[in-house]
Amino acid sequence: MLENKEINRTNLAELGEFGLIKRLTKAIKLVQKSSVKGVGDDAAVLNHKDNQTLVTTDLLIEGIHFDLSFMPLKHLGYKAVMVNLSDVYAMNGKATQITVSMAVSNRFSLEAIEDLYAGIHLACKAYQVDLVGGDTTSSTKGLLISITAIGEAKAEDIVYRNGAKTNDLLVVTGDLGAAYLGLQILEREKQVFEVNPNSQPDLDQYAYLIERQLKPEARRDIVKLFKDLKVKPTAMIDISDGLASETIHICQQSKVGCRLYE
Amino acid sequence: MLENKEINRTNLAELGEFGLIKRLTKAIKLVQKSSVKGVGDDAAVLNHKDNQTLVTTDLLIEGIHFDLSFMPLKHLGYKAVMVNLSDVYAMNGKATQITVSMAVSNRFSLEAIEDLYAGIHLACKAYQVDLVGGDTTSSTKGLLISITAIGEAKAEDIVYRNGAKTNDLLVVTGDLGAAYLGLQILEREKQVFEVNPNSQPDLDQYAYLIERQLKPEARRDIVKLFKDLKVKPTAMIDISDGLASETIHICQQSKVGCRLYE
Repeated sequence: MLENKEINRTNLAELGEFGLIKRLTKAIKLVQKSSVKGVGDDAAVLNHKDNQTLVTTDLLIEGIHFDLSFMPLKHLGYKAVMVNLSDVYAMNGKATQITVSMAVSNRFSLEAIEDLYAGIHLACKAYQVDLVGGDTTSSTKGLLISITAIGEAKAEDIVYRNGAKTNDLLVVTGDLGAAYLGLQILEREKQVFEVNPNSQPDLDQYAYLIERQLKPEARRDIVKLFKDLKVKPTAMIDISDGLASETIHICQQSKVGCRLYE
Repeated sequence: MLENKEINRTNLAELGEFGLIKRLTKAIKLVQKSSVKGVGDDAAVLNHKDNQTLVTTDLLIEGIHFDLSFMPLKHLGYKAVMVNLSDVYAMNGKATQITVSMAVSNRFSLEAIEDLYAGIHLACKAYQVDLVGGDTTSSTKGLLISITAIGEAKAEDIVYRNGAKTNDLLVVTGDLGAAYLGLQILEREKQVFEVNPNSQPDLDQYAYLIERQLKPEARRDIVKLFKDLKVKPTAMIDISDGLASETIHICQQSKVGCRLYE
């Protein structure tokens, strides 16, 4: 039976911007020592002391980066944080804070936005990252999320794209293509559903692939592994566009060539 | 005579994302000592040493925050930077870096986006701020800009919203309402133009008001003034929603009341 989602629907207009921000940020508890001041002033205040500060930002737009017909909002919030933290870990750093800006059209209810934030808060908790600021506004169409992630690292620990040397080994973490296969399955099932809305997809056998698409994890474990093994790679890059594209970035910046084996 | 703007029109699709980023960032020269690494890696690297780091972010959306029928793209780029720097100055800090994320629909040409960036670069140059990162993507509708500004200040110099005391004097910088009047004039002239496209607006007498709307300046001079006068205010806030709204923020956070005189 399809759930009636209209029962618990609060219009965002009833709350206003400040009411919404209050609702979405009341659960925040700062856990990082470097978070001096979080949400609630003109700017957040951080203190990374003797470490250098890492800053990275990603923009996710409905209809371009995600499809809400099969992406639950809570998963979307989680994933939006992951793609940003991933860039900090790809510098061999520790992610410490994020800011979250969001624009929503009037088709979204308070409950929908709270689902989105539940995913963001869950990601922050799992990765010990503080949500310290953001901006909330209306959009003329759809949902968009802009997250900036901030991290820290000792200057000598940071790994750039430009350090690869001749005879270095090029390695990847995780399964390349799994998230893409997950997306293909979800898009196929969406087409089936559009033809026959009574069909129930059986996705059990694809659980792994779909999880890679809907709930990816950033590889904080790799940064810890390097530390434990006392290994510092010569170069690192976050894969977002695919192996070929990222390999070229490393090669160009490091002024080396490469050979890839399947 | 109306200019034929189609003559120099390059489709963004011809360049691709990396080509576009290269075009838009080639002019960047880092001027802040704290900018260790700018555009070109997974994250920017900053070093604020003994200072604390300030982070603030604002999202500007076409049709909500700006109307391109009377807002030139270069002015928009400049203003988008100003509204962010303003938050850093409202903490009594020094703005040092920004990241710029942008989504554009296919109705924008390369030349249009270069105009937007010309305004962003001009603002960076005028305020000695480094553009150190961002994200560029396509949108399904219109233009949106998400900027994160980063600044620094000694811990003891930072001014929060919550320090106001009984008998403090509440003062404002600049003319409240001038930008709003400028907007009203521009919207009126837009309506006239829509009825009669041959009419040429005579805006000379409104130059001051229109400049407040189209090319506002962030009040870096006030931070310098306080420093020169060895004055540290008990509380400060950036006015974005209006005097009443911001006064309430200061009062609530500082646990004081206030009297306003016109």
